[in-house]
Amino acid sequence: MSGRAVRVGVIGCGYWGPNLVRNFSRHAGSEVVALCDSRFERATRVGAEFRVPTITDRPEELLKAPDLDLVVIATPSFSHFELAKSAIAAGKHVLVMKPLTTKTEHAEELCALAEKQGVLIAVDHTFVFSGAVRKMRQLVQSGELGDLYYFDSVRINLGLIQADVNVVWDLAPHDISILDYLVDQEPLSVSATGAAHGGSPTENIAYVTVRYPGSLIGHVHVNWLAPAKVRRTILGGSKKMLIYDDVEPSEKLKIYDKGFSVAKQPAPENEYQLLISYRSGDMHAPQLETKEALAVEADNIVKAISGKESLICDGKAGLRVVKILEAAQRSMNQGGTTISIDAVSGVR
Amino acid sequence: MSGRAVRVGVIGCGYWGPNLVRNFSRHAGSEVVALCDSRFERATRVGAEFRVPTITDRPEELLKAPDLDLVVIATPSFSHFELAKSAIAAGKHVLVMKPLTTKTEHAEELCALAEKQGVLIAVDHTFVFSGAVRKMRQLVQSGELGDLYYFDSVRINLGLIQADVNVVWDLAPHDISILDYLVDQEPLSVSATGAAHGGSPTENIAYVTVRYPGSLIGHVHVNWLAPAKVRRTILGGSKKMLIYDDVEPSEKLKIYDKGFSVAKQPAPENEYQLLISYRSGDMHAPQLETKEALAVEADNIVKAISGKESLICDGKAGLRVVKILEAAQRSMNQGGTTISIDAVSGVR
Amino acid sequence: MSGRAVRVGVIGCGYWGPNLVRNFSRHAGSEVVALCDSRFERATRVGAEFRVPTITDRPEELLKAPDLDLVVIATPSFSHFELAKSAIAAGKHVLVMKPLTTKTEHAEELCALAEKQGVLIAVDHTFVFSGAVRKMRQLVQSGELGDLYYFDSVRINLGLIQADVNVVWDLAPHDISILDYLVDQEPLSVSATGAAHGGSPTENIAYVTVRYPGSLIGHVHVNWLAPAKVRRTILGGSKKMLIYDDVEPSEKLKIYDKGFSVAKQPAPENEYQLLISYRSGDMHAPQLETKEALAVEADNIVKAISGKESLICDGKAGLRVVKILEAAQRSMNQGGTTISIDAVSGVR
Amino acid sequence: MSGRAVRVGVIGCGYWGPNLVRNFSRHAGSEVVALCDSRFERATRVGAEFRVPTITDRPEELLKAPDLDLVVIATPSFSHFELAKSAIAAGKHVLVMKPLTTKTEHAEELCALAEKQGVLIAVDHTFVFSGAVRKMRQLVQSGELGDLYYFDSVRINLGLIQADVNVVWDLAPHDISILDYLVDQEPLSVSATGAAHGGSPTENIAYVTVRYPGSLIGHVHVNWLAPAKVRRTILGGSKKMLIYDDVEPSEKLKIYDKGFSVAKQPAPENEYQLLISYRSGDMHAPQLETKEALAVEADNIVKAISGKESLICDGKAGLRVVKILEAAQRSMNQGGTTISIDAVSGVR
Repeated sequence: MSGRAVRVGVIGCGYWGPNLVRNFSRHAGSEVVALCDSRFERATRVGAEFRVPTITDRPEELLKAPDLDLVVIATPSFSHFELAKSAIAAGKHVLVMKPLTTKTEHAEELCALAEKQGVLIAVDHTFVFSGAVRKMRQLVQSGELGDLYYFDSVRINLGLIQADVNVVWDLAPHDISILDYLVDQEPLSVSATGAAHGGSPTENIAYVTVRYPGSLIGHVHVNWLAPAKVRRTILGGSKKMLIYDDVEPSEKLKIYDKGFSVAKQPAPENEYQLLISYRSGDMHAPQLETKEALAVEADNIVKAISGKESLICDGKAGLRVVKILEAAQRSMNQGGTTISIDAVSGVR
Repeated sequence: MSGRAVRVGVIGCGYWGPNLVRNFSRHAGSEVVALCDSRFERATRVGAEFRVPTITDRPEELLKAPDLDLVVIATPSFSHFELAKSAIAAGKHVLVMKPLTTKTEHAEELCALAEKQGVLIAVDHTFVFSGAVRKMRQLVQSGELGDLYYFDSVRINLGLIQADVNVVWDLAPHDISILDYLVDQEPLSVSATGAAHGGSPTENIAYVTVRYPGSLIGHVHVNWLAPAKVRRTILGGSKKMLIYDDVEPSEKLKIYDKGFSVAKQPAPENEYQLLISYRSGDMHAPQLETKEALAVEADNIVKAISGKESLICDGKAGLRVVKILEAAQRSMNQGGTTISIDAVSGVR
Repeated sequence: MSGRAVRVGVIGCGYWGPNLVRNFSRHAGSEVVALCDSRFERATRVGAEFRVPTITDRPEELLKAPDLDLVVIATPSFSHFELAKSAIAAGKHVLVMKPLTTKTEHAEELCALAEKQGVLIAVDHTFVFSGAVRKMRQLVQSGELGDLYYFDSVRINLGLIQADVNVVWDLAPHDISILDYLVDQEPLSVSATGAAHGGSPTENIAYVTVRYPGSLIGHVHVNWLAPAKVRRTILGGSKKMLIYDDVEPSEKLKIYDKGFSVAKQPAPENEYQLLISYRSGDMHAPQLETKEALAVEADNIVKAISGKESLICDGKAGLRVVKILEAAQRSMNQGGTTISIDAVSGVR
Repeated sequence: MSGRAVRVGVIGCGYWGPNLVRNFSRHAGSEVVALCDSRFERATRVGAEFRVPTITDRPEELLKAPDLDLVVIATPSFSHFELAKSAIAAGKHVLVMKPLTTKTEHAEELCALAEKQGVLIAVDHTFVFSGAVRKMRQLVQSGELGDLYYFDSVRINLGLIQADVNVVWDLAPHDISILDYLVDQEPLSVSATGAAHGGSPTENIAYVTVRYPGSLIGHVHVNWLAPAKVRRTILGGSKKMLIYDDVEPSEKLKIYDKGFSVAKQPAPENEYQLLISYRSGDMHAPQLETKEALAVEADNIVKAISGKESLICDGKAGLRVVKILEAAQRSMNQGGTTISIDAVSGVR
């Protein structure tokens, strides 16, 4: 398919779908050729704005659009698996909104099927494509932060309570996908606690802890019932530490040249005090790339389909995130028990 | 002892001890008559400033000071139990720094002994006496916040790493004592995860979750390795929510008239969306009492000894906090297992 | 014209024009029937989006649109006078962007002409229609703030440097129109200092001081060359004070129950110290109306044309603001001399 | 006097005096040998704490203290001139609190007299010795900021209203002395506006504008009646800009790699728009020296007396600041007229 534009069909024209339509429409290497939504008029409205030729309310119709390359699945998460499976079976590349699926075994099945069919699975871990998170990855990869100590993320606000999913499946994929992208390894275990307040059928506040080999620890606080909006991630390393505050209008990422070291030899005169020395240097807020995350993501997917780049968020990344989410869910169901990440793997 | 001043002896003249000496010296109803520190010159220096007649480096000497009423124990926490036991056995009232002891059974033994001896145990849960926390208690007690949903506290900073205790025993007593004071009931269970980074022998970052009957959940994040100082507690209730930010120079306490409600009847046209309505009203930052917390605490203790008030932070409060800390420690030792609060009770 | 919709023509489809088109299109009581822009294709694009029947690049053509009631003038400020004059002469109501004109005498001429023709002049002092400013006006009018002491406004940022107007004519109309709306009286005099940096032909930083009868003082700092965005107005009164911070995402308006009083009798023992007592009470951030300011403005204009309301920002308000701007300009030209507001009046 | 400690006498033991006593007591190269305060018991109390041998309530007695080298004058500003004059006449070096005097001619007289007597005049422009301001000076001197465009300083709060001096003479010396230290040249002219609210006999809010050769402009807003504490200075340069926020607990100084440039050739297609390009790079908050400003100042003075360093804030600096303050006062008295700095020079 060298040369011609990637032909995209989008299923789901709710809150997030139109943003995807807009980005694939604007990209020079792709065009949106088909739209599907169970509410036909909603698909029509979006289609009119972006001049999409084929509109349908049936996913199987969308798959028949001529020369379709990529199916974007922007529907509620419970439907991701079946829709992605059909699209992959039809030989299409897919881009699936987060979380990839609602079960680990489903994610594994999709990965296996895609490999067999020779198509790509991309997962919409949008934050991974933001300027701030890409810069954070660079700082980790280059060794500037040193060994990672902890990842602490808070994503709280009042509102957007969902009924079909709890706060872990709704908000934590953002934090977990950032964690996965930065740490680049599978964790050992997960534990989580949550609570459903005010007559809500699902948890609206939750704390998720992710343990890695060594002393690295990840922790996520998600909450739909907070009086103020906080979106702040702290990443502690042995050399430097950083704070990523997504609510700040500018200087979202602050890198602190701060740390400590423990002397080998304990102080003689004070037996219960270590010889700790602190280091406190400059703070630096790098200028971040301001291109819309979704545009960067669309570009990566278009280039991956054309064989020019590898996918940044592929099915494996989606699977790793789903595993952590499922382990968190099991832990919550069992009153906070620690769940080994191996325990949530599928049937293979 | 009606009429005459409460005669106070203070053991421990390190970081915190002089503040206690200052406050009991200034209080019209008390006078500091004896000081003890294993470093004699340190006790001498403090004694000179506050004109304390008796200086010693041996606690047993301090107990012999004539007509001593109250022994203040401001030493490292591992020594609290033995020192408090001797003082109580000698018929003295005691004020013990936080945490009361390092073991639940010790705290229970002190409580039992004090009851037998007819003396008071006060515990220095300093924050409980701050204007902000007292106002928070009022708001809870008066029902203005409604049912409590969650207590989320973050106390992080770079520095003051201790070697004899981990971050949970050092910092979390502040948050746990505030939680205990506001909630006023025993929790069901505790779980905790921590990590020791950078060659430190003890945990320098930890997350503690406390579960109560109903859906109330408490969570504390303590961290000695954070690049910025955060001391923020969010209290969510069914009617209102508040944020207590102790780092703010003014308006430390903000009360938000915010909340949500779930309709009984789910919306017909959208099966996976609840009928949620949000309420977002005014924010209010009440003027807080600015009297030093320690002065309020000293006043309460002096009046309690004189029989005019009951103790606000007594041995039972100290015991409840130690139970939670010990449960958190056990949970960390067992990789995050949930520990029933009943499991940490002593030999009763 | 009772009953039928107000028929609107908009001249100028640059940055701000489309917002006006959108608001008059959406309002139930008005419809946009004609658009004009010297770049025809720009007018066409906006016209297509809002289904406006008549598109032209000549203002005189727009005036011929059948049954036109209101002409909105959203062009660069130097052209306001001629365009408004023609429209008024043709018997149309006008809405003119800020500043109404670039000369006091022009504003006076428009007011006189409109009165003669029996049409309305509305001026687009957008901020006056924001929830925060309307609340501020309420607080002033109700006496809750007491006597006004000062109005201090800072509007600085990097960017949007204009070449045809300086920073005073570009940014200060926002602050001056808020000041005018809150204070509701004409000032005595104005002084201003500015500077043109970096080879710019016009001032890019300026300070404007406005004096009123009594001790009330207004001050505005406008700056295109600041490293951070600040939009903050402080209003000091004898009873309360408030801070309106437009950069804050929530709690934009904070009302402080703070003040001081001076005792009549000076303290005897200290001859150079007054007996001052301070009062420091609660801070309150009221929930503000969140309706778009321009929608509130459009509604007021539509209702004023229909005779149901009086104009909130009429030609007189526009004139008062232009007088202050012209006085500030003269003061800058004369090195900061104080200019009496009477000196800038026109040919009456 | 090589070798022996500088012998210091301090006149005035009010709010600020004890801080000076403490710093000269602690410095290895100086000792405080005499204290004077019109309230004898106040001097006694301070003397006891710092073991000062000679205590008096008469300045002329203090001057007789054996081998006195330096007289520190920490009294209300109206008394600076006479006290400094006597001390200099007696052959002593002097350190005078800000402002040096209340009249330009007095400052000139002191400078002349000191030169004649061969003694030093130091002025306590404390902020000049803070880590932040010294760093700012470095950035200016090294050319990192480029050409200076503006200095904008806001110092407002509720409280500490003085009766003998207005807000300009009380607070603005801080900002003006920082401005003088950074800019290092005399201004052309000054204008100022102020107001006295609430029955106060002196101005409690004021705006001072200082013009320099070229387009550099300084502006200071001082206010005793503000609902929040702001202490923020913005320094704009052609290459970089910085914000110094003294209220921030950390990262007080932020350097922004931001700016703009104007193309020589105006854009052809748009006659009223310049070709402006903006530059927006990293923000950097350097670690600042945290040594107490007063300790740095005391060290400079001790070394200057010993001939090892030159004074950083000498009589000339004090004189330059007094000139600006007097010009501001005259401008306020004349309703805001611009006052040439030459007009306030004394009788030479």
